[in-house]
Amino acid sequence: MTTHTVRNPQFEQVVRESFSRQGIMGTLGAELTRVAPGEVDIEVAHAPGLTQQLGYFHAGVQTTAVDSACGYAALSLMAEGSEVLSVEFKTNFLAPAAGERIRAEGRVVRSGRTITVCRGDVYALRDGVETHCATMQATMIRVESAG
Amino acid sequence: MTTHTVRNPQFEQVVRESFSRQGIMGTLGAELTRVAPGEVDIEVAHAPGLTQQLGYFHAGVQTTAVDSACGYAALSLMAEGSEVLSVEFKTNFLAPAAGERIRAEGRVVRSGRTITVCRGDVYALRDGVETHCATMQATMIRVESAG
Amino acid sequence: MTTHTVRNPQFEQVVRESFSRQGIMGTLGAELTRVAPGEVDIEVAHAPGLTQQLGYFHAGVQTTAVDSACGYAALSLMAEGSEVLSVEFKTNFLAPAAGERIRAEGRVVRSGRTITVCRGDVYALRDGVETHCATMQATMIRVESAG
Amino acid sequence: MTTHTVRNPQFEQVVRESFSRQGIMGTLGAELTRVAPGEVDIEVAHAPGLTQQLGYFHAGVQTTAVDSACGYAALSLMAEGSEVLSVEFKTNFLAPAAGERIRAEGRVVRSGRTITVCRGDVYALRDGVETHCATMQATMIRVESAG
Repeated sequence: MTTHTVRNPQFEQVVRESFSRQGIMGTLGAELTRVAPGEVDIEVAHAPGLTQQLGYFHAGVQTTAVDSACGYAALSLMAEGSEVLSVEFKTNFLAPAAGERIRAEGRVVRSGRTITVCRGDVYALRDGVETHCATMQATMIRVESAG
Repeated sequence: MTTHTVRNPQFEQVVRESFSRQGIMGTLGAELTRVAPGEVDIEVAHAPGLTQQLGYFHAGVQTTAVDSACGYAALSLMAEGSEVLSVEFKTNFLAPAAGERIRAEGRVVRSGRTITVCRGDVYALRDGVETHCATMQATMIRVESAG
Repeated sequence: MTTHTVRNPQFEQVVRESFSRQGIMGTLGAELTRVAPGEVDIEVAHAPGLTQQLGYFHAGVQTTAVDSACGYAALSLMAEGSEVLSVEFKTNFLAPAAGERIRAEGRVVRSGRTITVCRGDVYALRDGVETHCATMQATMIRVESAG
Repeated sequence: MTTHTVRNPQFEQVVRESFSRQGIMGTLGAELTRVAPGEVDIEVAHAPGLTQQLGYFHAGVQTTAVDSACGYAALSLMAEGSEVLSVEFKTNFLAPAAGERIRAEGRVVRSGRTITVCRGDVYALRDGVETHCATMQATMIRVESAG
């Protein structure tokens, strides 16, 4: 429904390279499963080291995945030489994140010069059934890359 | 400034026991450094596996720590047989979380029968200097413990 | 995409009656333009008494309209004898709300026994063009009606 | 506890002048009762035209007052020629806003060049007793004044 303008044709490479430098993504075993203009998905498989007290994916793990998905969705529309930082985000939890894996979807709602607003959603996959577990509203900011 | 009513004298044991069951806390190397009525602190030491692309603590890691701190601050005021779940939270990031460790503080603002509202703050400690990195507003809900 | 279960066949009457008791709706000149299961729209025409410093609809006016729209979307799915209260909401502002009127849409994302999560959106209408001005994520709670 | 740097000695005049141009403040009968560096209070007296369905101050009215209080707290620390806009805010409601008046307090948490983060609180005053009704976390942005 929204068409996004790509400012940097190398956006996928920029996103993948930055993702690979996020140490926490390795710790979570997170995979970048979709990189399109304004749309990034990140998936995480269940592991005992990612849980809250009842064995489900911890709210913070879901948030980490969907924050990165939103940040990279924002970055995918930014000009060359950009870095992205989270200004803030808000997550509502809709259902326990029970399952073999979660998929965190980051989508750009509005991409401005400085500020990008994103929507994020987390789905848990269990025995072939998807459950909508969390929804995020996030504000990202573009800063000049130091590199 | 606020005085909280303790409904379960065993609150510290309840909090420590639940914390020990959160797999992600072990993965982050998180420590429960304060458990008082309505007040819980969690500290995390820096590690390469906890970072965003610039080497600072990832926003999601800060959020994971402060979400648990808020949740356990809420749980510390709940009656016996309670479990706590995050309804939602919102985090603003104030400064890069650069340093040897972060301390996440969860504080109860209002403890109701069902809903507890908390404030959370994250401080980074670097060379003896503390920086306020993030601030959270969270809604927690009490559910009957299945156990 | 979501199908909602109607628990009270009189939902439209319940919503309209409660709306008519909200004094602020009269002050804003707000109209209830859609009442469907889990979906409520409220429209407000521009007036000098509704503006921020640049003459656009004030962020608080947009929020007032979309909070009520979300609350009534939640109420439309609740059982007889229910009252709805806002636990919290979060609004991102995407563009100046410039135009002859705004339409605030409240939509239920997940309707639980106690907690309902809603999404809200505000559109400004100017010379036949719609602009997406604001997006809300809200948590509503059901309480027993005193009446 | 925080000391703020004043960049524009005329800050109070700037805030009062902008406040006087917000049409909605007149509609609410809002008064600017405190303007200090990084700290602004706005009070609103109860009126039947400001209520939700139970006769309390509507969540949106509380939010309108505390959003302006936060925005003006942010503006009070900005350089000459600045305008302030709300990027986003999040409000938790703690208790019904019942009483003769409400006081909305906006306080700057961190004032950056572009982004200012604020905390807001709403208190209801009833028969000489104050109740903490709502708490806000807000992100404000500086834009160049067009004037």
